[in-house]
Amino acid sequence: MGSRPYGRPQGSRQAGRDGRRLAWGAAALLVAGIAVPAAASASQSGGGADAAALAAGHGPKKAKNVILLIGDGMGDSEITLARDYTVGAAGRLNMDTFPLTGAYTTYSVDSSGKPDYVTDSAASGTGWATGHKTVNGRISKTPGTDKPMTTILELAQKNGLATGSVTTAELTDATPAVLASHATDRSCQGPADMKACPGDTIAKGGPGSIAEQSVNHKVDVLLGGGKARFDQKITEGPYKGMTVTDQAKKLGYQVVTDDKSLGGLKSDKPVLGLFAPGNIPVEWTGKAAAVGGTDPQRCVTSNPERAAGTPSLEAQTRKAVQLLEAKGSGKKSSKKNGFFLQVEGASIDKRDHAADPCGQIGETASFDRAVKAARDYAATHPDTLVVTTADHGHSSQIVPLEATPPGLSSTLVTDEGRQLKVNYSTNTPGKSQEHTGTQVRIAAQGPQAERVLGVTDQTQLFTTIRTALSLR
Amino acid sequence: MGSRPYGRPQGSRQAGRDGRRLAWGAAALLVAGIAVPAAASASQSGGGADAAALAAGHGPKKAKNVILLIGDGMGDSEITLARDYTVGAAGRLNMDTFPLTGAYTTYSVDSSGKPDYVTDSAASGTGWATGHKTVNGRISKTPGTDKPMTTILELAQKNGLATGSVTTAELTDATPAVLASHATDRSCQGPADMKACPGDTIAKGGPGSIAEQSVNHKVDVLLGGGKARFDQKITEGPYKGMTVTDQAKKLGYQVVTDDKSLGGLKSDKPVLGLFAPGNIPVEWTGKAAAVGGTDPQRCVTSNPERAAGTPSLEAQTRKAVQLLEAKGSGKKSSKKNGFFLQVEGASIDKRDHAADPCGQIGETASFDRAVKAARDYAATHPDTLVVTTADHGHSSQIVPLEATPPGLSSTLVTDEGRQLKVNYSTNTPGKSQEHTGTQVRIAAQGPQAERVLGVTDQTQLFTTIRTALSLR
Repeated sequence: MGSRPYGRPQGSRQAGRDGRRLAWGAAALLVAGIAVPAAASASQSGGGADAAALAAGHGPKKAKNVILLIGDGMGDSEITLARDYTVGAAGRLNMDTFPLTGAYTTYSVDSSGKPDYVTDSAASGTGWATGHKTVNGRISKTPGTDKPMTTILELAQKNGLATGSVTTAELTDATPAVLASHATDRSCQGPADMKACPGDTIAKGGPGSIAEQSVNHKVDVLLGGGKARFDQKITEGPYKGMTVTDQAKKLGYQVVTDDKSLGGLKSDKPVLGLFAPGNIPVEWTGKAAAVGGTDPQRCVTSNPERAAGTPSLEAQTRKAVQLLEAKGSGKKSSKKNGFFLQVEGASIDKRDHAADPCGQIGETASFDRAVKAARDYAATHPDTLVVTTADHGHSSQIVPLEATPPGLSSTLVTDEGRQLKVNYSTNTPGKSQEHTGTQVRIAAQGPQAERVLGVTDQTQLFTTIRTALSLR
Repeated sequence: MGSRPYGRPQGSRQAGRDGRRLAWGAAALLVAGIAVPAAASASQSGGGADAAALAAGHGPKKAKNVILLIGDGMGDSEITLARDYTVGAAGRLNMDTFPLTGAYTTYSVDSSGKPDYVTDSAASGTGWATGHKTVNGRISKTPGTDKPMTTILELAQKNGLATGSVTTAELTDATPAVLASHATDRSCQGPADMKACPGDTIAKGGPGSIAEQSVNHKVDVLLGGGKARFDQKITEGPYKGMTVTDQAKKLGYQVVTDDKSLGGLKSDKPVLGLFAPGNIPVEWTGKAAAVGGTDPQRCVTSNPERAAGTPSLEAQTRKAVQLLEAKGSGKKSSKKNGFFLQVEGASIDKRDHAADPCGQIGETASFDRAVKAARDYAATHPDTLVVTTADHGHSSQIVPLEATPPGLSSTLVTDEGRQLKVNYSTNTPGKSQEHTGTQVRIAAQGPQAERVLGVTDQTQLFTTIRTALSLR
């Protein structure tokens, strides 16, 4: 080993992008160094011959498929809160048991490229979707010059992969938007919402609203909320006078609006699932946090505003995987190169903004079941890279019962029968609570999963997916 | 692979302790699976033959030495804040570049063993020091029956290792205390402070105060603050009438009080360094956060209350390693089995409690230089496990500049010239800000470092260190 062991390969130790390659080398060194005991350990726990084969370095290096799951606003504090409430402090969520883990930085930039320490979901999504940072509010376009940047979904399509995007928000909300559209501002969701994107209108030679772009991109599977956006009338261009839903049908989409029609879908044509007029109503309800706290409460694991027939994020994910697997395996299409799927648990963020701990926890648990759906697929398809992460941290903090926060707080009674106090004090009570700038967790399994180790930046997730899928 | 790939070894999938062994097996599988590309990557970045040897599984599996660095209250939010301010959002701290990383849970328990979702440093330290959880305030004793539990430092001593503990707090503060004392309550720091520990007094057949126990334990290197505690008069037992400092001298300790006398020390006798009457004054100063915020401020990188000749945490760490290396290598002592050293950055927590962003950031940066000192040693001693983690999360949050938190906040101007807003709103302004219950980062390099991957509990850190050092 001489004088260059762990974490200190020869050469430059410059931080940032240049330093990253060296850091990976160092991580790889360490990881590789434990191959022998790892094999022994695996054998002891039932891994057997398969484990030995993997230990010998024969695990897949290239991914056929990637499933990326984004818990919007799901910082480590939000994860811990959901764990404590639903499975107990010593329990483990599905997202907890990924083998390889790290943290990544999420900051956005201003128009000159200098850091903005707290990102929104649009800039954050642009970061992982394109590999480049942008200004808050921008959808896969450059921070200064406002030019479109190629997304990982576009690259996947170019390379013959099937693609999908699933969310509990409107399909035109920031996170799904960054994959299949380019917009000056995230607000430009439907044809009637183009005020903040004058250069993106069809009349000006632009690509139109996020909804129009999403279906024009012919993404194979689009599932989420936002039916009202897609039912807006198009006012310009070849589809003028039609709704975006009609445009989608004209482009070959099957349109479904409930779990029954979703379940019956075949994979021969692209799918647009719109399961709510706006965001899909959340699964759990309860008292919002209040100034001075709430009486100890148990969350209600239902929501009267959630229509019968609304598919869970897990059900959407399982169906999306099934459709993309069929498409991506080439049985019924030309897309025999696998698939890329993004799954967003969107309302973790939205309920954190609203200081609604029960809504937030229910959505985190719902997201965690979607993680299980993805990992169940990967269990029989080891050439699948599965990544679970967040786009930014958020407000909620678990504080001592005796704390008296100046903002909004609520006391919960967890499933293990203990009291837990949640604080939401990033903004004046009554205003929307705020995102935070903290680094967030990233966890992965499958080919190239080791790239999430250490501290990375979210733009590197683009490279991880691109490398795993060998996208050109 | 069949149907049991990544993360899904055969057998029980029970969460918690039983499930843990399986999870490690699974993690090991994955890690082992990338041995071949890892070697290639290492070669490309200058690893060369050493890298190939490591990739083949010939890296050390057993640690001779362990250096454990605890950033008190250093959650991911606190790490990000220090990074953003000192090296920029795209920069990397020394603690960021460990190769293997995960998160761990930090909750404590009540007297019946049920979870208390927000720990203090005493219960948290007891967790990693003994492998067992306890009630808040308790120092390495059981939660219900208040019986002493063996600590990792005691085990290391029993196995012939040299031992050390370094802190920026009083040496009798909770984190150093958990290693070399057992007390009903953390407040029982000196002979005059025994009110909350009636059963621990020497008169009652107990071991006396934390200060007395620390020197009675004959820890080889004790460096930190808290001189006033050690200058208290002992009121009972064989050392009655002497100060604890006198007792230490009687037990063979060399006592030093500044960087000059510290620098000149030899390793033939144990060392007690007391560099301040109480906690060691912090390195940086600035305006505390205030209701409604502060004017944008730059931190002052000095502190008039910090006496000339006060050694930095980095200097303390380098000296401790040098002394323990000499002892642990058996050149001048019978302790040829290596060493265990704990290093605490204590005032990250204390300045977070005080809503003092500059003090907090300065202490995090100071701690990070101690991390570098440890990793510099490990760079030439690859049989050293280095672990950096925190004992619990804390209040500070990075929020958007336009946020108006209801509690205390401050706007900083970072080294990269950007404004950053920090929020402290876990408790009523004027009261001490609170710990949070979030999981925190753990990062490691060296033998058994792979055990920090995924989500673990802080009690597992005890097992990691014990396993790495093969302590019986």
